[in-house]
Amino acid sequence: MNVRPTSNSISAVVDALKDMLGQRCSTSEAVLHAHGKGESWHPPELPDCVCYPDDTGEVSRIMTLCHEHKVPVIPFGVGTSLEGHTLAPLGGVSIDLTRMNAVLEVNAEDMDCRVQAGVTRKALNTFIRDTGLFFPIDPGADATIGGMTATRASGTNAVRYGTMKDNVIGLTFVNAAGEVVRTGGRARKSSAGYDLTRLLVGSEGTLGVITDVALKLHGLPEAMMAARATFPDLDSAIQTVIGTIQMGIPVARIELVDSTYIDAINDYSKTDYPVRDTLFLEFHGTENYVEEQTDLFSEIAAEFGGSDLERARREEDRNHLWQARHDAYWAILAKYPGKEGFTSDVCVPISKLAEIIHYVREKLESSFLESHIIGHAGDGNFHMIFCIDPDDKTQTDEVYRINALMVEKAIEMGGTCTGEHGVGTGKLKYLRLEHGDEAVAMMQAIKQAMDPENILNPMKTVTI
Amino acid sequence: MNVRPTSNSISAVVDALKDMLGQRCSTSEAVLHAHGKGESWHPPELPDCVCYPDDTGEVSRIMTLCHEHKVPVIPFGVGTSLEGHTLAPLGGVSIDLTRMNAVLEVNAEDMDCRVQAGVTRKALNTFIRDTGLFFPIDPGADATIGGMTATRASGTNAVRYGTMKDNVIGLTFVNAAGEVVRTGGRARKSSAGYDLTRLLVGSEGTLGVITDVALKLHGLPEAMMAARATFPDLDSAIQTVIGTIQMGIPVARIELVDSTYIDAINDYSKTDYPVRDTLFLEFHGTENYVEEQTDLFSEIAAEFGGSDLERARREEDRNHLWQARHDAYWAILAKYPGKEGFTSDVCVPISKLAEIIHYVREKLESSFLESHIIGHAGDGNFHMIFCIDPDDKTQTDEVYRINALMVEKAIEMGGTCTGEHGVGTGKLKYLRLEHGDEAVAMMQAIKQAMDPENILNPMKTVTI
Repeated sequence: MNVRPTSNSISAVVDALKDMLGQRCSTSEAVLHAHGKGESWHPPELPDCVCYPDDTGEVSRIMTLCHEHKVPVIPFGVGTSLEGHTLAPLGGVSIDLTRMNAVLEVNAEDMDCRVQAGVTRKALNTFIRDTGLFFPIDPGADATIGGMTATRASGTNAVRYGTMKDNVIGLTFVNAAGEVVRTGGRARKSSAGYDLTRLLVGSEGTLGVITDVALKLHGLPEAMMAARATFPDLDSAIQTVIGTIQMGIPVARIELVDSTYIDAINDYSKTDYPVRDTLFLEFHGTENYVEEQTDLFSEIAAEFGGSDLERARREEDRNHLWQARHDAYWAILAKYPGKEGFTSDVCVPISKLAEIIHYVREKLESSFLESHIIGHAGDGNFHMIFCIDPDDKTQTDEVYRINALMVEKAIEMGGTCTGEHGVGTGKLKYLRLEHGDEAVAMMQAIKQAMDPENILNPMKTVTI
Repeated sequence: MNVRPTSNSISAVVDALKDMLGQRCSTSEAVLHAHGKGESWHPPELPDCVCYPDDTGEVSRIMTLCHEHKVPVIPFGVGTSLEGHTLAPLGGVSIDLTRMNAVLEVNAEDMDCRVQAGVTRKALNTFIRDTGLFFPIDPGADATIGGMTATRASGTNAVRYGTMKDNVIGLTFVNAAGEVVRTGGRARKSSAGYDLTRLLVGSEGTLGVITDVALKLHGLPEAMMAARATFPDLDSAIQTVIGTIQMGIPVARIELVDSTYIDAINDYSKTDYPVRDTLFLEFHGTENYVEEQTDLFSEIAAEFGGSDLERARREEDRNHLWQARHDAYWAILAKYPGKEGFTSDVCVPISKLAEIIHYVREKLESSFLESHIIGHAGDGNFHMIFCIDPDDKTQTDEVYRINALMVEKAIEMGGTCTGEHGVGTGKLKYLRLEHGDEAVAMMQAIKQAMDPENILNPMKTVTI
């Protein structure tokens, strides 16, 4: 079913969209190129045009038109996807949702809000900064809430606050036929029928175009403490993470950064952190309780040889520490000028984290590639970053080979091929290995039922 | 599509099941009666036979047979359903899963486990009591994990630990064709494809028969504090709840019990609690932190006229306090000998909780029914209990009328017709009002795709 629409269909759709949207439908080469790629490297695939709707009604009209002509639609936020979700392998219409950037409602008393899909996570937090609430999910990039919902994103706070799956309470989407469907409500919990909200979260634009999202917000804790501790090796750091989680310390963040990363961060962010395997942490609670949690953590870390514990209490010190962590990806890229980043993203039961890292490092000993490890260790999720020349097939082949080894090992351990980046095109080939034929057949049946013409972000997530 | 199978089909299936299972397939009247009802009152509807499989393979063989003959299948745990999920309106085969009661694995280091569907929540907690871990979800009854998963159950701990949606990490189910499908994995998070796990959670046996479930476990907190405080009226209690949640106090339980319930509890549980509107609470953390949380709560409660704060630190005192809360339903039933309980279950944004309770109480002023309110107030979820004579149509009509008023108001407020009990047959008629035609059409499309013959628990949740 994965065939390009005819050029007649494309022309008909593009002409009609230009009539409908005027300059908000573009076919400029530069715009097509900006929308035929994501943040991590994949061979670009350009759409035939890019639309910039203003509201759900316009998305519905675009979708109805594309449905009539069987032309693919690819939702697009700010292009920070890492697994090729925004590519247009069959051409079609890229729907850029960045003009839909309004915060529609904030209900401080109920700690929820509703935003258009194009609002970014930072814009949302800026908007609500006077309410005493915050939205915790923080993938590295300042992604849109729509994109984060579609990819079931998470980030450093997931160990305490969950992922998008746990924080989306409802959403509006436009289905393949152009109809507007609303899921969920404002109740904190519900047993009323199939969980369409959770089905759309992580569906990557293949079941509908998400146009607005209702989110849980969380109370800003009375006190926060950031901390950093270094370890003789990754094993000791990981054992400390396991001990911390098992003690029931409700750590808000617990991030693993390997020594090569620290080296790059020191260069990039002008820090002078000891070049050792490191944990970055954050504790939320009352003044007393964050001190108590940090003390408890410190005892566990000491048992495993941890040292150099640095505490950051003041907001500026905490921000400084976390800015360094958030800059990590750019810090590594800066070490390899002219190269592009390729990011792996497996997640395993936390007891297997040390084992899989050993396994991959051993495999890498005979490789010409250098790797760098960063991880949301509290969730058993880590990324290995490779900086490569995408035009050099030896390099791309090698990165795919290592990535495959890692994914297969993670799945063998009961883990997943993607902890937070999504399937897109990059992980498509591993879905059957992870879930089995029966579960993939069920996903296909759902896709078939919701999008029989296969026009919603085709060739991503689940193929039919 | 909701037609009874022919008597020939039924005979063929029952004969084959008796061959397959021997005495583990029963057609005794007493057994059929025990399986044609749930815990809350609905007119009973009997299955044609009841099977007791020992493993997933047997469930698969039963399902394959029923599929071949187009005979309905109704999964059954311990029958504590409150919305008619276990009724057999078209007859068919009730699959009683209570023999499948093995804990399959406990991974203490990763804080997860896998259990067969027939394990009850209390049996699981007994099994893992030496691991330092616990499973927090606690509907009133000692329900099976399979039933709790199928109905997306929750209970008193949901405000802190979430519902079944948040605690099921994967599951195995048998689909309409008898195939065994496995969803999810052991990773703490994943973005790998459609969230089939969450689609099955809350699907009430209409998409498949759940045979085993992988669950998150949680570390037993170092310290727990239970507490009880009384208030001049429900409003003050609810304002205290809102203040507590908004302050970010990570309360583990915060339960509202009205004065009429307290009166019944005093009689039933031999307590001497002040007969006032009351909050029951629990705090989890370190020794210092639970005291600190209780102090903070106490200050908020005092602002709203709360008094009589009683703290329970020792395990036996805590258990005593919570036993009284858990006995509440039986305490009310004991006040009305010979009557049956009818339980409502709406959930609203917490800011609307006082308003909806006022609204319903006002409507009840002109009613001959007495009502009693108990609620998981931290989630905006409450139950009104009515004790009625199910053979008196005036009483059943009146309870349906009041329930409808309550549900309609909750939905108007952005809430849901069921916070935790499920749709079953009881809430079927409200699904469209709550979700809209487009969302219900999507649920129907999924049901149609997964169960085209409509043999999986037909006439429940979503009808096709």
